[in-house]
Amino acid sequence: MGKEEVSEQTHEYSGKDYQDPPPAAFIGLDELGKWSFYRAVIAEFIATLLFLYITVLTVIGYKSQSATDQCGGVGLLGIAWAFGGMIFVLVYCTAGISGGHINPAVTFGLFLARKVSLIRAVMYMVAQCLGAICGVGLVKAFQKSYYNKYGGGANELADGYNKGTGLGAEIIGTFVLVYTVFSATDPKRNARDSHVPVLAPLPIGFAVFMVHLATIPITGTGINPARSFGAAVIYNKDKAWDDQWIFWVGPFIGAAIAAFYHQYILRAAALKALGSFRSNA
Amino acid sequence: MGKEEVSEQTHEYSGKDYQDPPPAAFIGLDELGKWSFYRAVIAEFIATLLFLYITVLTVIGYKSQSATDQCGGVGLLGIAWAFGGMIFVLVYCTAGISGGHINPAVTFGLFLARKVSLIRAVMYMVAQCLGAICGVGLVKAFQKSYYNKYGGGANELADGYNKGTGLGAEIIGTFVLVYTVFSATDPKRNARDSHVPVLAPLPIGFAVFMVHLATIPITGTGINPARSFGAAVIYNKDKAWDDQWIFWVGPFIGAAIAAFYHQYILRAAALKALGSFRSNA
Amino acid sequence: MGKEEVSEQTHEYSGKDYQDPPPAAFIGLDELGKWSFYRAVIAEFIATLLFLYITVLTVIGYKSQSATDQCGGVGLLGIAWAFGGMIFVLVYCTAGISGGHINPAVTFGLFLARKVSLIRAVMYMVAQCLGAICGVGLVKAFQKSYYNKYGGGANELADGYNKGTGLGAEIIGTFVLVYTVFSATDPKRNARDSHVPVLAPLPIGFAVFMVHLATIPITGTGINPARSFGAAVIYNKDKAWDDQWIFWVGPFIGAAIAAFYHQYILRAAALKALGSFRSNA
Amino acid sequence: MGKEEVSEQTHEYSGKDYQDPPPAAFIGLDELGKWSFYRAVIAEFIATLLFLYITVLTVIGYKSQSATDQCGGVGLLGIAWAFGGMIFVLVYCTAGISGGHINPAVTFGLFLARKVSLIRAVMYMVAQCLGAICGVGLVKAFQKSYYNKYGGGANELADGYNKGTGLGAEIIGTFVLVYTVFSATDPKRNARDSHVPVLAPLPIGFAVFMVHLATIPITGTGINPARSFGAAVIYNKDKAWDDQWIFWVGPFIGAAIAAFYHQYILRAAALKALGSFRSNA
Repeated sequence: MGKEEVSEQTHEYSGKDYQDPPPAAFIGLDELGKWSFYRAVIAEFIATLLFLYITVLTVIGYKSQSATDQCGGVGLLGIAWAFGGMIFVLVYCTAGISGGHINPAVTFGLFLARKVSLIRAVMYMVAQCLGAICGVGLVKAFQKSYYNKYGGGANELADGYNKGTGLGAEIIGTFVLVYTVFSATDPKRNARDSHVPVLAPLPIGFAVFMVHLATIPITGTGINPARSFGAAVIYNKDKAWDDQWIFWVGPFIGAAIAAFYHQYILRAAALKALGSFRSNA
Repeated sequence: MGKEEVSEQTHEYSGKDYQDPPPAAFIGLDELGKWSFYRAVIAEFIATLLFLYITVLTVIGYKSQSATDQCGGVGLLGIAWAFGGMIFVLVYCTAGISGGHINPAVTFGLFLARKVSLIRAVMYMVAQCLGAICGVGLVKAFQKSYYNKYGGGANELADGYNKGTGLGAEIIGTFVLVYTVFSATDPKRNARDSHVPVLAPLPIGFAVFMVHLATIPITGTGINPARSFGAAVIYNKDKAWDDQWIFWVGPFIGAAIAAFYHQYILRAAALKALGSFRSNA
Repeated sequence: MGKEEVSEQTHEYSGKDYQDPPPAAFIGLDELGKWSFYRAVIAEFIATLLFLYITVLTVIGYKSQSATDQCGGVGLLGIAWAFGGMIFVLVYCTAGISGGHINPAVTFGLFLARKVSLIRAVMYMVAQCLGAICGVGLVKAFQKSYYNKYGGGANELADGYNKGTGLGAEIIGTFVLVYTVFSATDPKRNARDSHVPVLAPLPIGFAVFMVHLATIPITGTGINPARSFGAAVIYNKDKAWDDQWIFWVGPFIGAAIAAFYHQYILRAAALKALGSFRSNA
Repeated sequence: MGKEEVSEQTHEYSGKDYQDPPPAAFIGLDELGKWSFYRAVIAEFIATLLFLYITVLTVIGYKSQSATDQCGGVGLLGIAWAFGGMIFVLVYCTAGISGGHINPAVTFGLFLARKVSLIRAVMYMVAQCLGAICGVGLVKAFQKSYYNKYGGGANELADGYNKGTGLGAEIIGTFVLVYTVFSATDPKRNARDSHVPVLAPLPIGFAVFMVHLATIPITGTGINPARSFGAAVIYNKDKAWDDQWIFWVGPFIGAAIAAFYHQYILRAAALKALGSFRSNA
């Protein structure tokens, strides 16, 4: 809640008090020779598996309980907590290993901002989708009798909403998430407040929680193509596949807008401002 | 939970261990020439837009679901979380850009305490109100069939409460919020506990959450004139406009009392006490 | 989750890496001449007022809503959040001013551990009780029609529980709270982890939240004599006064046990162990 | 959300920027001569007692209230909060004394990773089980009329799930918890982000919260053999004993997999990667 009083007339950045990492390699073929790369891919796979396992199990458990007892189960609030809370825990656990994406839309946004290479982005997305499929598969194995009966945790457009609304909800929801991710990991911020990286998982998890509170009634809330894809593969009903494109196009557009907003509106200006501040001091 | 043993007899402050920023310019015309100023105004606009979008969507979604299923939806608890959680996330994201006000009452309180200039305060409030209108407008676009039916997320005095009660509830609620904002951003506190600025968004978000738990039954909880104004503009029904003044006068009075309490009771004394402590040491 | 490998044979403490503050003066008459003392008393008064205002308003609002709509209102979970969340926010706001007690049992525990003087302890308790009365008074003024109808937020033993059970529940509940307070403010801990004081309000608030989840069905959960006293004064019905002693004796016993456990079992040993560790190194 | 660009060709670790503690003694007989060891055992006993007291009291209170009022009580969400929140508070309070295990599965995982000696692991588990029995015993004493009627808080396989499903749910649930514990206490992480140890209790508590949201409908959620054992001893019905093995075998397998995953997949590689990074720089 402070503000910087900086003027704009100069543009040298030599006095920067933070380390702006160079953009990641565009292709990044050389990463394929490093164990840390495969370790990161494994961590993304496991994290997305656990994410889908816990969240879809919560969804199915809630629906089966509230079917017999109107007020039984953890409620929609509990479902929103499951999604947000797991993202908090898993980003916390994997941030130091893979960057803690657990979401192809986040990976896409960070790729656009040149934080990860193309190879890494693609491999992360593949690992995330496979992890999601396995996670939902476990839920189906554990909840045979209820899984199909209660919708399989798949994202579908609710009755009464058109595709444009669903797409819009996914775009804005993913924008909230990816904007929070960028804010939390801005290296300029880190330089001044060295504690941010450690605390970052909490607001990121809360962003996911908030978006679920708002859009569960519309789309069930995707904002994570791996989550929507994994559930669709295991559930495998027409409706889930018909709407599937919404849960890829929406999040990717939302992530792209967030990357643009952060890099061009907030960040580029920040660079300039900081430069001028230095030259004045 | 410590306390300082300081005596009161001296008054020199030369040994201060923190940087008390000079008061902001009263008018602040020179800010108009800086990009960082416009960037901050844009960030306030976007943040208030997202705040209203998520929260009002949650309110409408809850009401439409609980109409068909008594226990459906996220509950009033979920609504309170939506307001508090979004403030946590958005203050976290915008604190480094604009100070993270997202609320004309907070801006007003910080203006009274000379933390922001008049120009900045006015521009922030305009941006917040425009953002709020756009955010609620998106909800109406997405929820055509339910938006008007379920009250449009507008703040209105509930039946059975008179205007004095509503005004009082808004005053005290905003006092809780702005008092927390001042406590979280006290530069004296920062000097000793350098982590506070980063952690500040969490108690600020919780303050909003708590006030919603308490006063949703009375006024729907405003404590943010932009939130009340944006919903009233889009909903545009008589009752919302008739009560609108409560949601401006109440929060502004509450913010003013909080600014007075912090600056004159808590802070001024703190300055003196610290001075005397130094001279003793 | 680490553990210290230290041996026990030596007892010199000269190498301590933390500042063990000297015990507070027992009487502390000289504090009466300092503004910082009165400022702290004012802060305790305001904080307890806000605590009771928000929490009792939440209780009354919940009961009035759930009377017309079985699933309406924020639920018992929302009430537990109101108590725990307000303690988090208010301890965060007042920790640097008064130590953030907001509870005579906490003040009593810290007095027993010689963290506050007798004068300060008594003045805090008086301020807390007066603040609580004013806070509940505000609720009664705002909720005239519902306040008496829905129990006034007073703590009473629920039907089917005897006084011993109620007393036991208050003792253990307060033990959980005061044990957390001591753990969070242990100066030995601060020396190694300088971030603890800032983070302390969160676990303290959660401790209050947890105890409310568990014992609302038994006593409505006191664990704070000012909270129980303030509600009893304004509600002023026989039952609330008949059970009042439970909500003073229980919390004071619980706080005393927590002070003993921390000072004699955990802390004294810690001192010795640290001494021996130093002499080995 | 950063990633390290490190190559893999070298293997010297001399430049490590963190202190990898030596593995704990395997047997650890010498610990028996230290007060800090007994203090830690006492802290584990008290913490597990408080954990079971608060959580089982919440379970019984919820069931008795929702029996008379369909929407009464704190809900399954409140129960999940009770388990997760208490772990947060108690790990925070005991981390500096005993390492804050409060769970034989966590102790077992840390023993496998050579973080605690055999003697310490066994003594912790005994203390945890005794503490759990005492905690549930208190609940039974306080809730005589309801305790047996509402299942005594014992973990049992729900109708319609076979033993394999229950075992699987316990394995994965405990994996989530112990994986979070390892991530939070990785000494390599500490070196770079010195704040992690203090923040660790929050994600650990959330991991417990999340697993309860997902698996309460299947097993009631154990993931803590002391919790399941303590409830079974006091409840003492056939069904609870018949399923008891699931709540020991499952958590121990899950903890072992987590220890393996962290030590061999994530950590060993991290060591190598760091070595190569140093030699390149």
